[in-house]
Amino acid sequence: MGNRNGGLDGTQRKEEKEGIKLSEIVLRVLALLLTLIAAILLGLNKQTKIVPIKISPDLPAFDVPVSAKTSYVSAFVYFVVANSIACAFAAVTLALALSGKGIIRLMIIIVDLMMVALLFSSIGAAGAVGLIGSNGNSHLRWNKVCNVYAKFCHQVTASLALSLLAAIAFLFLVILTASKLHKTP
Amino acid sequence: MGNRNGGLDGTQRKEEKEGIKLSEIVLRVLALLLTLIAAILLGLNKQTKIVPIKISPDLPAFDVPVSAKTSYVSAFVYFVVANSIACAFAAVTLALALSGKGIIRLMIIIVDLMMVALLFSSIGAAGAVGLIGSNGNSHLRWNKVCNVYAKFCHQVTASLALSLLAAIAFLFLVILTASKLHKTP
Repeated sequence: MGNRNGGLDGTQRKEEKEGIKLSEIVLRVLALLLTLIAAILLGLNKQTKIVPIKISPDLPAFDVPVSAKTSYVSAFVYFVVANSIACAFAAVTLALALSGKGIIRLMIIIVDLMMVALLFSSIGAAGAVGLIGSNGNSHLRWNKVCNVYAKFCHQVTASLALSLLAAIAFLFLVILTASKLHKTP
Repeated sequence: MGNRNGGLDGTQRKEEKEGIKLSEIVLRVLALLLTLIAAILLGLNKQTKIVPIKISPDLPAFDVPVSAKTSYVSAFVYFVVANSIACAFAAVTLALALSGKGIIRLMIIIVDLMMVALLFSSIGAAGAVGLIGSNGNSHLRWNKVCNVYAKFCHQVTASLALSLLAAIAFLFLVILTASKLHKTP
């Protein structure tokens, strides 16, 4: 059990191992870059717009500047923090994975797993708020805001997509490490 | 590498294996029950309240029935669906785990991992909407609704807590299976 490759000769075995190591490095670098860009993209997201507001029907409309900021929504703040943490751990595990064996592998799988949970929960949170921002919810009387802050909302969508790719990369890293543990004799 | 227990004798080894199997079964049954209760608790959640609404200052207030339902918020619907899927897969993997060896273990780890991602994203989504429902967001002009639908919101909170415990159970199941793969010679 756990030793499917008993019949392979040394060279083939070594090649396969190097292939797995290379794909692990690629996935980690990808996760690092994607979470970094996602965190920056949403962290620096801000849009200010001049909106005409009528106080009384007799007076002309006032031009009032209104702005959307990431710090206004706690789910977006959580998203930026989660992606920053995942970015830092991707860097740490990248260094560890290059040298790690045995018990280090098990620790790396646990860290990767935490990052999957962290990233998916933050994507869910930011995605749910973004969806209401885009469509509104008539039952709760929460009006959509993306018609006003279109640029802000586009940047949220882009950031969510990048972070989802990073979360999937972490998911594959757990599967990769698990299959490695499965294969090592 | 991967064979830390080479020095243990057969009896100790067998006892340890049985201990791991027992904790796996306990965790799976726990995950199954928790996701089931969480899905039912939020799926059947509904609250109707009579709210006095004033149309004109000269007329007396009308008593209007208003209601909160899970189906009104897409994040809550996603939460119920995610917990139902996780519940079904907990049952399937419970049956598989009792007999599974080798490659089946690796498949189980992948399923458990998907459930971690699914549950955490749904908890994030429902949690983010629940938080705005409870606190409101003045920047987006989304008013809190939990002052009106207190019972509904309490049930959402309870459901979220149960689902979070189930998600953590799945997390431990991945770690358990990974450590098992790590130990098998």
